[in-house]
Amino acid sequence: MLKNNRVVRVEWGDCDPAGIVFYPRFFAMFDASTTALFERALGMTKYQFMKHYDFVGYPMVDTRAKFIIPARFGDDVVIESTVREFRRSSFDVEHRLLKDGALAVEGFETRVWTSHDEKDPNKIISAAIPDEVIARFK
Amino acid sequence: MLKNNRVVRVEWGDCDPAGIVFYPRFFAMFDASTTALFERALGMTKYQFMKHYDFVGYPMVDTRAKFIIPARFGDDVVIESTVREFRRSSFDVEHRLLKDGALAVEGFETRVWTSHDEKDPNKIISAAIPDEVIARFK
Amino acid sequence: MLKNNRVVRVEWGDCDPAGIVFYPRFFAMFDASTTALFERALGMTKYQFMKHYDFVGYPMVDTRAKFIIPARFGDDVVIESTVREFRRSSFDVEHRLLKDGALAVEGFETRVWTSHDEKDPNKIISAAIPDEVIARFK
Amino acid sequence: MLKNNRVVRVEWGDCDPAGIVFYPRFFAMFDASTTALFERALGMTKYQFMKHYDFVGYPMVDTRAKFIIPARFGDDVVIESTVREFRRSSFDVEHRLLKDGALAVEGFETRVWTSHDEKDPNKIISAAIPDEVIARFK
Repeated sequence: MLKNNRVVRVEWGDCDPAGIVFYPRFFAMFDASTTALFERALGMTKYQFMKHYDFVGYPMVDTRAKFIIPARFGDDVVIESTVREFRRSSFDVEHRLLKDGALAVEGFETRVWTSHDEKDPNKIISAAIPDEVIARFK
Repeated sequence: MLKNNRVVRVEWGDCDPAGIVFYPRFFAMFDASTTALFERALGMTKYQFMKHYDFVGYPMVDTRAKFIIPARFGDDVVIESTVREFRRSSFDVEHRLLKDGALAVEGFETRVWTSHDEKDPNKIISAAIPDEVIARFK
Repeated sequence: MLKNNRVVRVEWGDCDPAGIVFYPRFFAMFDASTTALFERALGMTKYQFMKHYDFVGYPMVDTRAKFIIPARFGDDVVIESTVREFRRSSFDVEHRLLKDGALAVEGFETRVWTSHDEKDPNKIISAAIPDEVIARFK
Repeated sequence: MLKNNRVVRVEWGDCDPAGIVFYPRFFAMFDASTTALFERALGMTKYQFMKHYDFVGYPMVDTRAKFIIPARFGDDVVIESTVREFRRSSFDVEHRLLKDGALAVEGFETRVWTSHDEKDPNKIISAAIPDEVIARFK
């Protein structure tokens, strides 16, 4: 399975009065990492692949994170992301955030692939993930 | 001119490693205050008045803030908001954020009223602010 | 066990291009709800009880959320929060976010109570949750 | 005067229901750009130079931004940052955010250099910017 790594600089504004990352910011980093993974697999930006696949996003169904080592402003952390499993219309992503090579945060996501409802263009419905998309991850 | 006051609790997650509000969060508070002011004037939520007036938002053109007294988590601040001037398609909003009755932050905004382009529904254009909207502020 | 309910207005700035809450914002709302619960139990703001108990925060160890119904700007949601279990130095919080009375998001948290290390004031260590604090939740 | 350029990817989570950057996020980007500029000038991370200069941050006194061209998720924008003027304890920063080479957002900041009060370590006071710091920008 394709894996994507990216380096993220922890900024002052990501941190709370304890001087460490305010944990909701890790979820924002993971969301951007999932997008970076798809962009790498599909060779397009999210904006482009949303148009290409008449796709309206992969909203989160269930997410979890475990916080092992705190990170603070000025840290350059590495986020490794991979899809663990593709099902018909949902899929699981796993993120490993490393600080100085050590596992600092683990993230788990279950997302659903969505499209426009042909009957009602204002409605969003879950849709089968295109085989072509899945193939790009292998 | 109509004035709207609202109380905002400063949260831990609004604050930075210095223990005070990370200033971009004040702009988010002011954006919500502008919306609260319009909601009060129009008697509808923003979601509702966007539909009612075929309005697609009041994007920011120019904004400024002056920071006089810092605020920290646990503070309940009051934000007083008012429209300073309505022009054809743009308007100015002023916010005064008070802490214990003293002026802590001042915010100034120039926004533009936008609508869908009749020729191209994907395009957003500036539009005349409806007289009916302006009348509600007086 | 004490339960705290609070109403949260979903703001435009909490939402993403799909028009619904960007899910990391739910974690920020839950963090504020945990604090509101402790503030209600202890009768002090977090700023005050951090000083009172020589307490330096309850960093997150493990958190999970399940997203059932999306929320959009203008929605007033209710967040019900309660401590599920206190252990020696860690505890579990559960949040139920309701939209129009229906369960929209569930949140689960395991946090650890921390204090200053007596040997090194710059160091933060896990500490026993004071009995007095636990008693206030019953 | 030293100038620092950095590329910022606009993320889905930076954008609002109009599909464009929620403007408070530009201020967060500018804050990180000011830090990147100082880090480049001083050859240290902010965490390091705060310790090195017994410096406790450069809180914002006055900031303004003008929004010319909207940016949306997937855009890679360039932020050019420079100090316009150093005074005794305050300084002005200017940011130019470019999209496809065109000026999209301009940001202006006046910040103050702060240090610990020798009489009261819990107090923060404005302090003279070290000559050595200023020299590094030339």
